Amino acid sequence: MSFVKEVSKWILSGINGVIQSVEEGEIEEMISMLTEAGKNKILILGTGRSGFVGRAFALRLMHLGFNVYVSGETITPSLSPEDVVIAISGSGVTRTVVAQAEVAKEIGSKVIAVTSHPDSPLAKYADRVVVVKGRSKIDGEIDYERRQIMGEYDPAPLGTMFELSAMVFMDCIIADLMRRLGKSEIDMRKRHANAE
Amino acid sequence: MSFVKEVSKWILSGINGVIQSVEEGEIEEMISMLTEAGKNKILILGTGRSGFVGRAFALRLMHLGFNVYVSGETITPSLSPEDVVIAISGSGVTRTVVAQAEVAKEIGSKVIAVTSHPDSPLAKYADRVVVVKGRSKIDGEIDYERRQIMGEYDPAPLGTMFELSAMVFMDCIIADLMRRLGKSEIDMRKRHANAE
Amino acid sequence: MSFVKEVSKWILSGINGVIQSVEEGEIEEMISMLTEAGKNKILILGTGRSGFVGRAFALRLMHLGFNVYVSGETITPSLSPEDVVIAISGSGVTRTVVAQAEVAKEIGSKVIAVTSHPDSPLAKYADRVVVVKGRSKIDGEIDYERRQIMGEYDPAPLGTMFELSAMVFMDCIIADLMRRLGKSEIDMRKRHANAE
Amino acid sequence: MSFVKEVSKWILSGINGVIQSVEEGEIEEMISMLTEAGKNKILILGTGRSGFVGRAFALRLMHLGFNVYVSGETITPSLSPEDVVIAISGSGVTRTVVAQAEVAKEIGSKVIAVTSHPDSPLAKYADRVVVVKGRSKIDGEIDYERRQIMGEYDPAPLGTMFELSAMVFMDCIIADLMRRLGKSEIDMRKRHANAE
Repeated sequence: MSFVKEVSKWILSGINGVIQSVEEGEIEEMISMLTEAGKNKILILGTGRSGFVGRAFALRLMHLGFNVYVSGETITPSLSPEDVVIAISGSGVTRTVVAQAEVAKEIGSKVIAVTSHPDSPLAKYADRVVVVKGRSKIDGEIDYERRQIMGEYDPAPLGTMFELSAMVFMDCIIADLMRRLGKSEIDMRKRHANAE
Repeated sequence: MSFVKEVSKWILSGINGVIQSVEEGEIEEMISMLTEAGKNKILILGTGRSGFVGRAFALRLMHLGFNVYVSGETITPSLSPEDVVIAISGSGVTRTVVAQAEVAKEIGSKVIAVTSHPDSPLAKYADRVVVVKGRSKIDGEIDYERRQIMGEYDPAPLGTMFELSAMVFMDCIIADLMRRLGKSEIDMRKRHANAE
Repeated sequence: MSFVKEVSKWILSGINGVIQSVEEGEIEEMISMLTEAGKNKILILGTGRSGFVGRAFALRLMHLGFNVYVSGETITPSLSPEDVVIAISGSGVTRTVVAQAEVAKEIGSKVIAVTSHPDSPLAKYADRVVVVKGRSKIDGEIDYERRQIMGEYDPAPLGTMFELSAMVFMDCIIADLMRRLGKSEIDMRKRHANAE
Repeated sequence: MSFVKEVSKWILSGINGVIQSVEEGEIEEMISMLTEAGKNKILILGTGRSGFVGRAFALRLMHLGFNVYVSGETITPSLSPEDVVIAISGSGVTRTVVAQAEVAKEIGSKVIAVTSHPDSPLAKYADRVVVVKGRSKIDGEIDYERRQIMGEYDPAPLGTMFELSAMVFMDCIIADLMRRLGKSEIDMRKRHANAE
């Protein structure tokens, strides 16, 4: 097996460990806040790779009919107290995300933080924290195997393990929303961009 | 007067010439298509600097309450025949913009092209063309003055004159929409992003 | 186990199947084209969720010191024949991506297509195709298990399986590039944005 | 003359007033910091319409051969003390821009603020402030004419006057850079994106 495929097995096993470790109660709360959003706005916050994960999630929420927006894009309207904000940051210290979560909190919007660090500045402004562990948190369990594969290198550098886990995790949230809302893939396809 | 301020006078005079040369009928049609859009979607197409001009226009349309989207951003839903597409390209040959206008035309959406070239590929897919001249078209009139200021240089290189003229022109469209729709700045501020 | 966690196991197993099915030769060629890029430009093409996957890959390539750009962003310079283009599209039919790959091919740049469809329009303009299967291709193997979990719903709607597989796969390419180029996480951190 | 054209004359006259009021010394300092940047990085900060103005400026800097980046886009590398940051905000209070300017200042990068408010939080973190007045500052002079045209409406709502003035002003900076660096339009065209 090539190195790339070997690493993929190690990474997928890591993602599985991360997702299985998310608290069931936090998953349920996140889904409830989304299903209760109704026609209120959902605003996604995140920079860098966490921002791309957030955008991928936002697209699927749009396909499901949610009224979703992404910070940093052109069309981002004003927040109201009844809106939901989902802030994604592994470290929980990204300044622009923390600054925006703070404003959202002041406005009174419901803020969900998806982060590896429940004690981070971001978590401080969140009504709900969904802990998606990153590398540092799961190192203990997988460290031996990693050293064997990689020597001194880390095959999931920087926030990779958090970002991939958050990406897969949020696509599973989408699957659950489809089930609960009774939406089929055909319903979603109707809202898929058709002029690209 | 510094060179920068001298150039600004020359550029502003050029923008004025371009905007005064837009056909009144084309302006009126563009405004009508927008006011008749109602709750239907408006999709803005454009790349590079024309894309930024389009985004700046999209933001103001959102502030006025229009249901507007920008191609290339995360939240870009599917087009329907009753939607309006505004495609901005000075040259009218930008491939991705032409490709998207073609799809929009196939879907049956109303396509407005804002371009310097009424005979361009983009114009071919447009229901309405608003001609905003670019440099090449107004060179004759201002060439002597330019040579005096710049020698061999052109102080409005590439699409600069089209882009600046389109930016100012579309802000004037916004002013007219405010008047016709009876919207005040206070109405617009309510929709302005408040979490940045 | 909650529905979300159950779906995650099914999705991770699907991703594993997709990545293990990629041809070793195609992986090796893609890595070679990247390591041979040197200081030449690498341009990433993709829209929607495939675009976000491409951006996440681009960020890591930048962290490794590559001279990488993303189509549709502000700073996207002109292509030269010695540059490398990576076009990502599960279906291989996304118009804007195909249009840009066509131009890149005309210019003479080396085009790599990452797609589920080796016979697609996109693949036609590619020098190398890396086949990352999407849902339709692996349905046969996992269909029974899926029906048990989801009933009529598909827990990985639209391009989800392709996008997640491509995201993980390209992070494994990054791990291999780190190893081959002798780059550590510390080297990468130095290039990580520090003003966000 | 149509309302749109009448408004355009009023707006262009306003832009002229704003640009002529910029301090010559501030213009000269901004140009010096750019020409001295050499191969160091230039990072543009801005959100909303000011962000689009910044991106349009960034594109031209790239065409001139500068090593320029835009905050919020994929490829934004780490800042170093020798880098130059240009932060654009009419009000000077946009949180994410202020937060990033603060980090840039901590790193020791040279920060230029383009703002209407030299006493704003943004200006506090800037080494140089270029004051581009917005509406509130020039109201006195043009108020009578505006009331005649618009009645209670303001034809340049929110930050319009700042944004348009900054856009034209920075294109004039580009014209001056072309002259000083001896760059022709043909040099610039070589760096223009050719795969869009």
